Amino acid sequence: MAKITASLIIIGNEILSGRTQDANINFLAKTLHPKGINLLEVAVIPDNHAKIISKVQEFSKDYDLVFTSGGIGPTHDDITTESMAEAFNTHLELNEDAQSVMQQYYTQMNDVLTEARLKMAYIPHGARLIKNSVSAAPGFILNNVYVLAGVPKIFQAMLSEIIPSLPTGDLTYEKTVKMMVGESRIAADLADLQKEYPQIEIGSYPFGIDGDKHGTNLVLRATDQELLEQVFEKLATMVKSVEDKYII
Amino acid sequence: MAKITASLIIIGNEILSGRTQDANINFLAKTLHPKGINLLEVAVIPDNHAKIISKVQEFSKDYDLVFTSGGIGPTHDDITTESMAEAFNTHLELNEDAQSVMQQYYTQMNDVLTEARLKMAYIPHGARLIKNSVSAAPGFILNNVYVLAGVPKIFQAMLSEIIPSLPTGDLTYEKTVKMMVGESRIAADLADLQKEYPQIEIGSYPFGIDGDKHGTNLVLRATDQELLEQVFEKLATMVKSVEDKYII
Repeated sequence: MAKITASLIIIGNEILSGRTQDANINFLAKTLHPKGINLLEVAVIPDNHAKIISKVQEFSKDYDLVFTSGGIGPTHDDITTESMAEAFNTHLELNEDAQSVMQQYYTQMNDVLTEARLKMAYIPHGARLIKNSVSAAPGFILNNVYVLAGVPKIFQAMLSEIIPSLPTGDLTYEKTVKMMVGESRIAADLADLQKEYPQIEIGSYPFGIDGDKHGTNLVLRATDQELLEQVFEKLATMVKSVEDKYII
Repeated sequence: MAKITASLIIIGNEILSGRTQDANINFLAKTLHPKGINLLEVAVIPDNHAKIISKVQEFSKDYDLVFTSGGIGPTHDDITTESMAEAFNTHLELNEDAQSVMQQYYTQMNDVLTEARLKMAYIPHGARLIKNSVSAAPGFILNNVYVLAGVPKIFQAMLSEIIPSLPTGDLTYEKTVKMMVGESRIAADLADLQKEYPQIEIGSYPFGIDGDKHGTNLVLRATDQELLEQVFEKLATMVKSVEDKYII
């Protein structure tokens, strides 16, 4: 068991223009968590060759695993696949497994594997395919990079295919204490608690109640479950005394 | 009028852990669009000094405007403000305007500007304040970096304060043709159209209809509105003939 790090590159003008609300960051984060894989950085970048190449090279070096979403469809603005090949000094080739699975899919739909669709069977040399149970055209794995579709339904389907084969790291456990007063009331005590337990990540997330009132979610995260329980008890007691003092 | 570029740094473990679904990317993109400001990159990073500093230095150099969200509250995990000071070789100082506006706010609430809250009035030397109409503690502008709160309601309120003072760039106009067949049907013609009009950004975004059927949003974006209308007419005609051929 070890610490495993991950990053995500979202490739898509449609997210940056505000046309589409991203759904893949949150889904990936939630999916990696029970595998003990820590998502440590996300980049959202345009459909631009140079930018895709430099970002994937950077993340591939800095993180154990890199996921990408978007840009693997049949149209001219889908440039992720060719950019991946270039990033890793390899070339695209017609992948016969990809072709065969797409041939089957379109035949079943009484449709044809046209030239435009066949573009999606050109995969970087040396890559392994990721099954697409929604619409056949596969994703792929190249080095430590997992190249997935951007459409959330297909992104999720591809992710579920690869999850069992991903390495498993130290699990991070999480416990939350909900406090019904604002975070400034506990800030000093919380800082002391964080100093005392550097192995525990303590986060403080305010939320609005009605009108001008605030509450706070105090979130503890750690790989040491026993220690987490201990600090949780301490924090719960702390919160109770703060609430007793400030809630009239 | 000119091209104005922007980027966003989301500082927050809660987004990366999957606990919170981001809402600020989409809101910022939609807000900048009518100002003619192009959001070209987003980074989501943890509450980590070194990472915040290196990312803000990189984006400040690469883009005209940088927005940040998160990490300016009163608790120990709010380290954005001190990181900004360090990134630009300056120091924090008690900002009297910030202190005064917070003093007023808490007095009005029959409450007290405690030491924990006063932390939020320490602002990098030389920064200008951004008003917070929700909960008083201000954001700030340092060089070309706009430092905003992470809570969407406060992020949005601060953004609305600064929008009038932001520069205005060439407006990007957008027109969409909705096509009721999959994108591969038009891929070749679309690539030709893109080649003919490199000034127009043509995006193709598939969506599911019922069951196995797909439709496609074909999105044209350009600063030249007249040319956009011309290409829109061409594309609409193209789409009609594709639909006539494939919708039985």
